[in-house]
Amino acid sequence: MAWAVIGTWRMSREGCAKASEILKNNGDAADAAVAGVCDVEDNPSFHSVGYTGLPDKEGRVKLDGGFMDGNTLHFGAVGSIEGFRSPVRIARSLADREFNNFLVGAGAEAYAQSQSFERRDNLTPEIYQKYLEKKNAVKKLSSYSGHDTVCFLALDHSGRLCAATSTSGLFLKDPGRVGDTPLAGAGFYADSLIGAAAATGVGEDIMKGALSHEVYCRLKAGMSAMEAASSAVYELSETLKKRSGACRSISLICLDSRGRYGVGTNTSFPFVYAAWNEPLETWIAEPDGNAVRIHLPGPEDLNLD
Amino acid sequence: MAWAVIGTWRMSREGCAKASEILKNNGDAADAAVAGVCDVEDNPSFHSVGYTGLPDKEGRVKLDGGFMDGNTLHFGAVGSIEGFRSPVRIARSLADREFNNFLVGAGAEAYAQSQSFERRDNLTPEIYQKYLEKKNAVKKLSSYSGHDTVCFLALDHSGRLCAATSTSGLFLKDPGRVGDTPLAGAGFYADSLIGAAAATGVGEDIMKGALSHEVYCRLKAGMSAMEAASSAVYELSETLKKRSGACRSISLICLDSRGRYGVGTNTSFPFVYAAWNEPLETWIAEPDGNAVRIHLPGPEDLNLD
Repeated sequence: MAWAVIGTWRMSREGCAKASEILKNNGDAADAAVAGVCDVEDNPSFHSVGYTGLPDKEGRVKLDGGFMDGNTLHFGAVGSIEGFRSPVRIARSLADREFNNFLVGAGAEAYAQSQSFERRDNLTPEIYQKYLEKKNAVKKLSSYSGHDTVCFLALDHSGRLCAATSTSGLFLKDPGRVGDTPLAGAGFYADSLIGAAAATGVGEDIMKGALSHEVYCRLKAGMSAMEAASSAVYELSETLKKRSGACRSISLICLDSRGRYGVGTNTSFPFVYAAWNEPLETWIAEPDGNAVRIHLPGPEDLNLD
Repeated sequence: MAWAVIGTWRMSREGCAKASEILKNNGDAADAAVAGVCDVEDNPSFHSVGYTGLPDKEGRVKLDGGFMDGNTLHFGAVGSIEGFRSPVRIARSLADREFNNFLVGAGAEAYAQSQSFERRDNLTPEIYQKYLEKKNAVKKLSSYSGHDTVCFLALDHSGRLCAATSTSGLFLKDPGRVGDTPLAGAGFYADSLIGAAAATGVGEDIMKGALSHEVYCRLKAGMSAMEAASSAVYELSETLKKRSGACRSISLICLDSRGRYGVGTNTSFPFVYAAWNEPLETWIAEPDGNAVRIHLPGPEDLNLD
């Protein structure tokens, strides 16, 4: 039976292997997408998600996460939540409620506590040291670094498509800043009959284009996954350059309802894909005019994570 | 020169008059849309926005607001903010920042305080009394009442389209719950070259369809404002009934780039519209199959606000 999974950045490789195992064994797309994201949330090597996430301006690690079920269009999300192990698991638990699917700040923390979600201090001494070094040099930062959201999209044998996301957001962000990652339509979107999409990069620019929903609209209008993703990112980048003066890094992954992937990006962007008919592989996507060029990593890509 | 303004619910009538004056005098669409929303935020007769807004489960009035500039696609937004007079003014002030355009909870309050936005306790003794009466009877509520967001869309003589929104959200919502109102793509969207849209009703369902951006996509594909708004609301309602078992109240207003309006709704929905060639008028929109019927209020509409 057909299944497929795609994840953002090299950091999603191990999670992608776990998700593939679930899907190969006729598991569920929701379980697969969430397992992929959880793997990254728990990995201390990746500093933009979960444990060892990057702190805000006050030195606190506040996390965003989202989940969407393409069968029901139900979604769950948390924004600016501190002190818990897995924003994506909390987000998923909110998806099937009648109301109150998106919770932020202290309210989200009270909910997570009431449901006995595992607590964790995600700030380590090494990351705090990095924060102390950078916070007074913030004007010298050429751009916010570490804005790398993990996103997984999964299609299972039943045809269910799900999206799951998690991030610590922009390094040195203002307290209470929420990006695109927990927002259905901006950071993710999933409809099992059409396709699913999820974005990573500078959330403020992704939100200006409601980018994941834009890709969904293009798939619905008949574009291929590759065409939908690459044209949406290209056009948003061009629009923002023209009308707002600049467009920062944006990358996007999508899966159509048959599990074929598409990628759009305005920067070098590694992603990981596996499917019933394709072994797990890390690829690099590069912007190429208004399209995208996909290739296996070469020596010049070693510094991309 | 052409100008136009549209607002949700009867409560937007006085604000619509203020916005019209601004636009008639060659004022700016951002000023007009925000002035319209501010009028409702300050009016003690309307219990779903600003002053006398409806409390959450803990008896606290937490507000959401958003703003978008259709020229630049810049947006600003606050979610779950307490103790300030005007969420929409705070939202607008966030729109032209490079980063950190969407702030929630304590972080949003700290920002508003730092910028000297006017503080106000929006909870009155009468509303607190209503809260005390209802909170233990919550299971008997047939649905959440008072989920009426004020939205304004304005087109000015220069062709600039702006959207502005404000709400206290669902009555007795969970602490930290954020709805569609502050979310670009869900609660509002504006692009001066195409059109603008904004939504009111049950935010959780509006977010499932990224409804304001969906209407934008339909305008972009060539539909009229009326066709785009009515078909998007009708299709989302049908999709949610089929795939999620139910769809709650949803209404949506839009303006195309020439100031012509469209409305979509699955319930009786009053709105207010004025333009360079049309006097200010309150209208009632009713669902009519997959379209919408617009008429002047009759005696049977007196209870609709």
